[in-house]
Amino acid sequence: MPKEARAKPGASPPSSASAFSGRHLLGLQELPAEEIRLLLEQARRYAPLSTQNRTKHPVLKGRLVVTMFVESSTRTKNSFNLAARRLSADTMDFAAGSSSLSKGETLIDTAKTIEAMGIEILVVRHPASGAPDMLARHVKAAVVNAGDGSHEHPTQGLLDIYTILEEKKRIEGLRVGIVGDILHSRVARSNIWGLLKLGAEVWVCGPATLIPEPLRDLGVKISHDFDALLPNLDVVNMLRIQLERIKGPPMFPSIREYARLFGLNAARMRRAKKDLLVMHPGPLNRGVEITPDVADGERSVILDQVANGLAVRMAVLHRAAGLAPFAEGGAE
Amino acid sequence: MPKEARAKPGASPPSSASAFSGRHLLGLQELPAEEIRLLLEQARRYAPLSTQNRTKHPVLKGRLVVTMFVESSTRTKNSFNLAARRLSADTMDFAAGSSSLSKGETLIDTAKTIEAMGIEILVVRHPASGAPDMLARHVKAAVVNAGDGSHEHPTQGLLDIYTILEEKKRIEGLRVGIVGDILHSRVARSNIWGLLKLGAEVWVCGPATLIPEPLRDLGVKISHDFDALLPNLDVVNMLRIQLERIKGPPMFPSIREYARLFGLNAARMRRAKKDLLVMHPGPLNRGVEITPDVADGERSVILDQVANGLAVRMAVLHRAAGLAPFAEGGAE
Amino acid sequence: MPKEARAKPGASPPSSASAFSGRHLLGLQELPAEEIRLLLEQARRYAPLSTQNRTKHPVLKGRLVVTMFVESSTRTKNSFNLAARRLSADTMDFAAGSSSLSKGETLIDTAKTIEAMGIEILVVRHPASGAPDMLARHVKAAVVNAGDGSHEHPTQGLLDIYTILEEKKRIEGLRVGIVGDILHSRVARSNIWGLLKLGAEVWVCGPATLIPEPLRDLGVKISHDFDALLPNLDVVNMLRIQLERIKGPPMFPSIREYARLFGLNAARMRRAKKDLLVMHPGPLNRGVEITPDVADGERSVILDQVANGLAVRMAVLHRAAGLAPFAEGGAE
Repeated sequence: MPKEARAKPGASPPSSASAFSGRHLLGLQELPAEEIRLLLEQARRYAPLSTQNRTKHPVLKGRLVVTMFVESSTRTKNSFNLAARRLSADTMDFAAGSSSLSKGETLIDTAKTIEAMGIEILVVRHPASGAPDMLARHVKAAVVNAGDGSHEHPTQGLLDIYTILEEKKRIEGLRVGIVGDILHSRVARSNIWGLLKLGAEVWVCGPATLIPEPLRDLGVKISHDFDALLPNLDVVNMLRIQLERIKGPPMFPSIREYARLFGLNAARMRRAKKDLLVMHPGPLNRGVEITPDVADGERSVILDQVANGLAVRMAVLHRAAGLAPFAEGGAE
Repeated sequence: MPKEARAKPGASPPSSASAFSGRHLLGLQELPAEEIRLLLEQARRYAPLSTQNRTKHPVLKGRLVVTMFVESSTRTKNSFNLAARRLSADTMDFAAGSSSLSKGETLIDTAKTIEAMGIEILVVRHPASGAPDMLARHVKAAVVNAGDGSHEHPTQGLLDIYTILEEKKRIEGLRVGIVGDILHSRVARSNIWGLLKLGAEVWVCGPATLIPEPLRDLGVKISHDFDALLPNLDVVNMLRIQLERIKGPPMFPSIREYARLFGLNAARMRRAKKDLLVMHPGPLNRGVEITPDVADGERSVILDQVANGLAVRMAVLHRAAGLAPFAEGGAE
Repeated sequence: MPKEARAKPGASPPSSASAFSGRHLLGLQELPAEEIRLLLEQARRYAPLSTQNRTKHPVLKGRLVVTMFVESSTRTKNSFNLAARRLSADTMDFAAGSSSLSKGETLIDTAKTIEAMGIEILVVRHPASGAPDMLARHVKAAVVNAGDGSHEHPTQGLLDIYTILEEKKRIEGLRVGIVGDILHSRVARSNIWGLLKLGAEVWVCGPATLIPEPLRDLGVKISHDFDALLPNLDVVNMLRIQLERIKGPPMFPSIREYARLFGLNAARMRRAKKDLLVMHPGPLNRGVEITPDVADGERSVILDQVANGLAVRMAVLHRAAGLAPFAEGGAE
């Protein structure tokens, strides 16, 4: 156990929380429910600091978080960078997309280079599903998946669950709908794994062409009729239609048709539960999957999701650094 | 008033300087003359440190300056980054141009994301005139305009005025010429607002197609004859011809013709006042609006402008951080 | 001599090591053998820290290393950034490729801007051979060449020599082969200058079209028959075929033909010395100039080169900062 891992006397957590089970975060599929709960609790403790610009927690002082974004991402990269800074870590962008990879270097050679350079915490986004897993097998660094292909986006899943928990005070027994392009969505996949483990009833909804049938085998319920589903939901997570991911023949007649059938608007909201929670991972296609009035309305927690993303990523980096849950650290 | 805003005893400024009137810097149009003078004096105090690599002023220690450059800029971005570092601030580049904005996210959603992340000081460059104003209305962060469309580039205006003041010891009563593409130039606009407020006589000069006539209403004098104007000027600010901004049919016959009529060269310099100050905001089109011998000559203060840019941006960041004028800060 | 340059009592180096002869590192061609040895020894002292993520040497605390990469480079840029961080320096990327240079600014104007901004240590990569030399003549900053055109890549040369020295305990009298596209390779050029100065016997090998004959005048031996050369070598440095550099008509029939004649594979390795050292500057074209089994084999030190790159660049930045050899610094 690293030096930093000792908890301060008097702040000792319950014994069940004495250690995380690992440092990588590759997906919510392989994360036990107990580990998810530990991360959510760690995030809750960081939340008061997460959006205060001037207060920095010293827990990662002197340590380096390296981000490698082979696929571009504004929100996620900014969020990880800010989270690292607020834990007093240094950050460095490992320029991987621009040069060597385009010179034909394989991901495995990149991994070995990272290893040879002694990098300790690596946050990676990659267009290929499974790339973070592969890296994790070849480096001693703790690997945090910031989104890989259509596989997983575990910190988004965690922050969505965290947001639901903050608002509803529970996950178990809630009926959560995820609406949109489920087939291509790593956000959907991470939400599904996490929510099922914590006992939610998970529905996915969208055009048949965008819903993979095998999801039923996991215990997910499928609907193609948003109007029928919506009144029963406690939470609805409106995915953005990622037109750039949809290759080949069109999977739905038109944007307008999609918005008519699966967009969340004021008319639909009137048939929803009064305390329906409206979520969206951003960035929004206003007027497509969600209308501006609903996105900015009182039942929307879209901006809470952004703020909670910082707290969750602080927790994930804390764990990646090999610290015990709730350890204060920073005393170096 | 924030904790950092208290001035040290014994260093107390005149009572008129006890506070800045705001934290945003959106343009010089809306900045009162007194506020401009305060910023120039704050810059003068930072100047000795601004170009010393090893000395860091602790005034912004532990605080984060976020830069969002939706339009690329070498000089301005480097200058803001260096200015922030020399005040001991952390800097972070908010990657906005590459990803979400191209995914169709609106600027207003970006603003809300910034707000949700708790960012305190935001330096923004944007191709759309008015974008920083819009951001300032939607975020609690202090917004510093690093150039928006053809609207304003207030730190360039301030550093140009600062440079004139250092050399001429006054602004009032000076005759200042701004030569070139006035129509598309945010540099011209910020200079005009600031110089008029401080009492200069401002002339703009260029082909009729590049001079907006309504400038007369502001009290700006217009000339299309550089040879007639030049001998009367105390300061000449040679704008670069931004060919990339000129859309549609050509506004002047050729680069060669432009240089012949409006370029500053040795022949013209012989008809100018002996103490004419030669300025250029950079980057130079050597041989177009200015010849190399003049740009590198003894009456040129072009490199002083670069150095002064650091001092001015340190002052602007000091103000954006909510500190009182001349506050020492850094005692956290 | 700067304050930081005093060595700690008791740690005083031999008097011959009391100073470096300069701060720039432009190429190994102009670096005396004694200076190369000093840098290698400085690197050896930093090596234990170079790949430990958490330990930072305070020697450059409070100082700023500016990187200007006009040509993209993953490995070298990451390595310089990490090296700077591990000496506690701040780093800043001087955005030069994207904006002003494309607006037509000359390199000399960029140099003057850098000078006006008071930058102290500048790491530059540039597509034009000689660009770092030109910058060094126009700025007071210490200039470190991170690769210029087909001229030199001195830190790569130093790290290759460092790696050989670590493994073989000597350079003098070793027979070193450099195989591939010698004509376009700055890596080859820096290796040749450094190795010759330290007394190695240097062979270059490749298709006649890729070997510049004037190398003979420097004392380099030339072979076009890899099979004949290999059994005599102590070290072989397999350059990557940089297809992007080869303009005009093809210089060899095909990649497959190149690999057959000049690729390092298991069959060739069986005819090599048992203790042949296999090197490659990366990134690898696996299956072209080297097969995966050899690249990952026990005689390969390719990943050691990456790790050693950090130690060497720490040494080069130490020297660029104006510190005396082996000075502990950091006591500011």
